[in-house]
Amino acid sequence: MISKTIQGQQRIIIENLSPQLDAGRFAVKAFVGDTIKVEADIFLDGHDQLAARLRYKFSTDETWTEKKMTFVNNDRYETSFEVSKNGFYTYTIEAWVDHAATWEHEIDMKIKDGQQVNVELLMGANILDKMSKIASKEDKTELKATAKIFRDNNTYNEAIAFTHSEKMHNWIEQYPDKQFTTTHKELKLWVDREKAAFSSWYSMFPRSASSKKGQHGTFKDVEENVLPRLKSLGFDVLYIPPIHPIGTQFRKGKNNSTTYLEGEPGVPYAIGSELGGHTDILPELGTLDDLKHLIATCQDMGIELAMDLAIQCSPDHPWAKEHPEWFKIRPDGTIQYAENPPKKYQDIYPINFESENWQGLWEELKTVIMTWAEWGVRIIRVDNPHTKAFGFWEWIIAEVQAVYPDMIFLAEAFTKPKVMAQLAKLGYTHSYTYYTWRNTKAELIGYMNELTKTEQALYMRPNFWANTHDILPWCLQTGLEPMFIIRYFMAATLSANYGIFGPVYEYMFNEGNPNKEEYKNSEKYEIKYWDWQMENKLTHVIRKTNEARIENSALQRTNNITFCDIQNDQVLAYLKTHPNGNKILSVVNLDPYNRQGGNVRIPLNLIHKHPDQEYIVHDLITGAKYVWRGEYNFIDLDPHIMPMHLFRIEDI
Amino acid sequence: MISKTIQGQQRIIIENLSPQLDAGRFAVKAFVGDTIKVEADIFLDGHDQLAARLRYKFSTDETWTEKKMTFVNNDRYETSFEVSKNGFYTYTIEAWVDHAATWEHEIDMKIKDGQQVNVELLMGANILDKMSKIASKEDKTELKATAKIFRDNNTYNEAIAFTHSEKMHNWIEQYPDKQFTTTHKELKLWVDREKAAFSSWYSMFPRSASSKKGQHGTFKDVEENVLPRLKSLGFDVLYIPPIHPIGTQFRKGKNNSTTYLEGEPGVPYAIGSELGGHTDILPELGTLDDLKHLIATCQDMGIELAMDLAIQCSPDHPWAKEHPEWFKIRPDGTIQYAENPPKKYQDIYPINFESENWQGLWEELKTVIMTWAEWGVRIIRVDNPHTKAFGFWEWIIAEVQAVYPDMIFLAEAFTKPKVMAQLAKLGYTHSYTYYTWRNTKAELIGYMNELTKTEQALYMRPNFWANTHDILPWCLQTGLEPMFIIRYFMAATLSANYGIFGPVYEYMFNEGNPNKEEYKNSEKYEIKYWDWQMENKLTHVIRKTNEARIENSALQRTNNITFCDIQNDQVLAYLKTHPNGNKILSVVNLDPYNRQGGNVRIPLNLIHKHPDQEYIVHDLITGAKYVWRGEYNFIDLDPHIMPMHLFRIEDI
Repeated sequence: MISKTIQGQQRIIIENLSPQLDAGRFAVKAFVGDTIKVEADIFLDGHDQLAARLRYKFSTDETWTEKKMTFVNNDRYETSFEVSKNGFYTYTIEAWVDHAATWEHEIDMKIKDGQQVNVELLMGANILDKMSKIASKEDKTELKATAKIFRDNNTYNEAIAFTHSEKMHNWIEQYPDKQFTTTHKELKLWVDREKAAFSSWYSMFPRSASSKKGQHGTFKDVEENVLPRLKSLGFDVLYIPPIHPIGTQFRKGKNNSTTYLEGEPGVPYAIGSELGGHTDILPELGTLDDLKHLIATCQDMGIELAMDLAIQCSPDHPWAKEHPEWFKIRPDGTIQYAENPPKKYQDIYPINFESENWQGLWEELKTVIMTWAEWGVRIIRVDNPHTKAFGFWEWIIAEVQAVYPDMIFLAEAFTKPKVMAQLAKLGYTHSYTYYTWRNTKAELIGYMNELTKTEQALYMRPNFWANTHDILPWCLQTGLEPMFIIRYFMAATLSANYGIFGPVYEYMFNEGNPNKEEYKNSEKYEIKYWDWQMENKLTHVIRKTNEARIENSALQRTNNITFCDIQNDQVLAYLKTHPNGNKILSVVNLDPYNRQGGNVRIPLNLIHKHPDQEYIVHDLITGAKYVWRGEYNFIDLDPHIMPMHLFRIEDI
Repeated sequence: MISKTIQGQQRIIIENLSPQLDAGRFAVKAFVGDTIKVEADIFLDGHDQLAARLRYKFSTDETWTEKKMTFVNNDRYETSFEVSKNGFYTYTIEAWVDHAATWEHEIDMKIKDGQQVNVELLMGANILDKMSKIASKEDKTELKATAKIFRDNNTYNEAIAFTHSEKMHNWIEQYPDKQFTTTHKELKLWVDREKAAFSSWYSMFPRSASSKKGQHGTFKDVEENVLPRLKSLGFDVLYIPPIHPIGTQFRKGKNNSTTYLEGEPGVPYAIGSELGGHTDILPELGTLDDLKHLIATCQDMGIELAMDLAIQCSPDHPWAKEHPEWFKIRPDGTIQYAENPPKKYQDIYPINFESENWQGLWEELKTVIMTWAEWGVRIIRVDNPHTKAFGFWEWIIAEVQAVYPDMIFLAEAFTKPKVMAQLAKLGYTHSYTYYTWRNTKAELIGYMNELTKTEQALYMRPNFWANTHDILPWCLQTGLEPMFIIRYFMAATLSANYGIFGPVYEYMFNEGNPNKEEYKNSEKYEIKYWDWQMENKLTHVIRKTNEARIENSALQRTNNITFCDIQNDQVLAYLKTHPNGNKILSVVNLDPYNRQGGNVRIPLNLIHKHPDQEYIVHDLITGAKYVWRGEYNFIDLDPHIMPMHLFRIEDI
């Protein structure tokens, strides 16, 4: 017996459809406005012709849009479609044996060979009859009339002439006989808003925003002191660590001390006290209304506020009392605090994702995010997502984006490569990356190519950070000004999404704890006072670079990068191009001590110049313009003057 | 609401399991005796430990066999299993959070740090209690006793000592707590018998087997004249074109003439007459009993008979009358003959796989193969499988191999690469290949690497043919003796499965039809007379090469090939090694006119020699032995003497 699931007459195979991720297990990602190129191997047995169409629709569309796929070579077909909306698209390919096209080709060969084709014309008449059943009213009449001509020996010559007419050809395309159609499994494409493609992040602690030394900063202080600076420097995302009540049990003191002095503010990540938890506000920062006001003021200035989701509790968090089942209970009845034996972190209770009441937990966490979303939050930075269950992230990101497709999630997963990749596959919009530790030319090129030229380009969006409030990398502990400039500049030009933790970055603060890549006197444990007006060479570079990013679309994407040859291991050169013609060449001296130079090889095909053609390279940091010609052009960079060029390539 | 399909507490991800083909859509292939290395990325959130096991079973096994997977690096785990039976195996991986192992690690760290671990011992006691529920009778008692020690403060030190005992460690491995286990989708592995790995084919027309000139050869003639020659030359598969009654309507004459003279035998591929079809025998060849006798005689001599399945009919085939619905019916009521417009092949009716009665057709074709199988046939060469529906092949190969797992199918699909690959994925044991047209060093290395070092190695088994009864490639039309030797030798040593169409090959017959890669006066259209005793230099090479193939396991596999550097584009050198220590180095001069030489670079790691160590290369064709040393050794090949070396690498 032949299984009833077998479609015996279906002859077409559709394979290797791209883009797709893990056989459709995960959605591929794109940005609003992208053109998605779809390709597949499509073939059948024998010599019959086939027809193939891409079908796609936005989640709320009722009907599919179809596009004809065109043959490339070696059984590969392609077409493309534009995605204009933020949300899910579904796409697939269907293909069928195109008997009409086969007939058209064969009768043509026979006519050219001088054969009698009376029987073939009868076949054609049958094809026309089939078409007439699905044709428009006008065509229906004409199709029937043509079939009559095909069947009548007296109009043999007229029929023959018609077989290779344009009208016949168009009918064959327009009224396909989709018998035994093969349809590929439907695939999903997630389309993010533009902000997910291009963003400049600035991270700071609101409690350090006061203009009065020794005073706890407030949301109002952020509005008054911080936002004008961000606007002036060109940042468009303000990311702040948790703003909730902070626990007092086992509160940490300055420099992560296990004891704290009266009045020390504690760590914002020890979330929750008798004043509330993840949907409550630390009174010292202001009220919920103050927060909403800050969000609104940000919006007015073209800045978005990113909140920080840390799924953990201080021992004083309401959940510890109300939902002890969401934590691990030790045999002595106490809740298990965080530990990395032999180290203990008694100020933190981690959540147990194996909880029997995991549904209740998930729903509560959804409530947290939905509450924030109601306040107006559309960007969430997630603290250590790699220590929470993968399945939870897949669920919650989908749940939230079903209501707020514009919600952006950044995964702070400084962890193993495959775990980092998995979080991106499951739905995270952005990922913190290893950029912070990629220093040499080989490391940088290798890492960028991994991100942009492998399968990772389908799902992983890097967000390059030169530092964070947790990380002061070794290279910055040198304190060298060129190093701060280089690391900032590369973050902002290699990746379209990047960030810094300030103002320690602008101040080029370089003191770490011994043998650790972390800040001494970290703001995680104390309130700081900053001059929010401070300007120096680095702020000049930041301002100019962000200006260039805003004005040049080539810098607003990441995967459009091409590294350029230059015979100097201390010089990194990379070109970014945009379909609108914008072309940016960055050249960076990686050596913070010495002048370095060489001949950069420009891929002329990408800048559309002839080998003997002159063009201008316009440095957007210094304003200088140079006339270059052809493929190889010399550069020389003194790190003490300016360790890089940010060239726009312009016509002469 | 959270979907009921979500396993919220399941925390482990298993990805990139290898081997697998198209996400498990197709079975991976292996041979009896193979060791299958299984790898996967396995990871979870956070810092808990995990345990992973491979599970596999043969189709008839009732229970799974389990093997522990070991950590390699970067979240990759591996193990392997041996396949000892011909048929389907199923395999998968399961992994779970190993809370016991995590506990063992953490309590160890705390004890070393000098911490009090009373609560941790209580956790351990709970773990021991859980183990005791699934433990053996003896262990159960001991587990319970140990749990008591863990719970008693008076035996604190004893308990502590036990936490890092070997017994504790073994219990953790032996009695896992498989809560919230993640199990990978089950994958299939098809295991073929040894013959599928290693075979030497000889193809000939039985009707040309007579020792009397002008007489129609018979199965008896094959037994008397052909089998002794095959045995002597070392072939172990005799492949014969169709042996069924031949149609008379539109019968082809000599050299594919559309008219035939009285007495001309016709083309064996025009299958079917009033005497019957695919399960009947052309009387001139003998009876069914004669065929069975031939099969038995072959078996006695260690040779297998391969039959030819051509799914097409002459107009006289019984199916044309009984099942016109299996063919395309033209509007004039006639059955559509084969054509490639403007060419017509009126002696052949192709089958219409879009037939409404496709089930009836499939069942009938299954009857054909099952009938042959009952006669004792276990190898089937399929003519032009790429002109029949893919779905049919997947079904019929599975149906036949469910009863006869030892059945070998060879796809004669000289067609586009992706179609050829698809047939192999769907179940074909062997594939004819592009070897026949790969001549230069770059072509040969590129093609071999595609077959053996890409995903194709999982499913595509090449069968290399120097010629076929349809194909006399240009290179052989030169008629040069070294070319016949080279092309034969490479087929037999690059691929473990190979074949020639004889005796034209041994005779070095080189006359083709003008501008065609086909034989003039082809045996497809006429009966030939041959001297089945003929010996020449080429038959000497064939005999010696087949002897070497039989005696050297390294030549009995294909994917074990490594090409060796040699700075001469006319010399091809390749090493094959077998785990049993057998090592064969082939060196071929591709230039049939001139002496060519150079220094072959031997990969010393593969032959297990030191750079200054001497070893013997023993030419298995000539018997000569040379002492070589280290990495680079000189060779020089005169094509007029012998265009190649077949070296066994031996210890001194």
